[in-house]
Amino acid sequence: MRIPILKLRDCLLVSIQWELDDQTALSFQEDLLQKIHMTNARGVVIDITAIDFIDSFIAKVLGDVMEMSKLMGAKVVITGIQPAVAITLIELGIRLEGVMTALDLENGLDKLEQELGD
Amino acid sequence: MRIPILKLRDCLLVSIQWELDDQTALSFQEDLLQKIHMTNARGVVIDITAIDFIDSFIAKVLGDVMEMSKLMGAKVVITGIQPAVAITLIELGIRLEGVMTALDLENGLDKLEQELGD
Repeated sequence: MRIPILKLRDCLLVSIQWELDDQTALSFQEDLLQKIHMTNARGVVIDITAIDFIDSFIAKVLGDVMEMSKLMGAKVVITGIQPAVAITLIELGIRLEGVMTALDLENGLDKLEQELGD
Repeated sequence: MRIPILKLRDCLLVSIQWELDDQTALSFQEDLLQKIHMTNARGVVIDITAIDFIDSFIAKVLGDVMEMSKLMGAKVVITGIQPAVAITLIELGIRLEGVMTALDLENGLDKLEQELGD
């Protein structure tokens, strides 16, 4: 299973709606970076509302993919972080520095478009 | 595998990025109608750019899901219909009446928002 990545103007939208297994998380990382490169996307919104629990591997992959996207020049907004996910991220020392957060997909997209000056 | 359905303001966005098998198509139909009901969505954009070939079963399911969405009060835009898909749909007599079409996801969303008067 791969996670679809939608292109909307110069942003990419991803909504993760089911728990990720390790292989899916790794393919997602690869697909997202590839898509940023192919589309010259300036921003990425990743919505994880549906994930109410993550393990350390997935947390690390998510943290990495955000760092990598930033390296490639895309601003990242992560939306819908649930309490247990926030706890896991902080406890694992994944601080998501420079990553914006928002309540849901539409707020995230608004924030990103504001940030990109559209 | 299930197809993620993204909610953006009062529209739902779906991007089908891999060939559908029969079971996935049926779950998609169910999920989309459920989500229209849950979110009171007024419009749906379904992007099928990545599908370059459909069989008669999938064509029927897609045709049906659009009719059903309309019945539930949502306007439907389908985007990125490839030549072979257009041929299959017409040859099978699936005319998608009252369904708007557009080149890609962003055009589809613009068209829908215009139509909904946003």
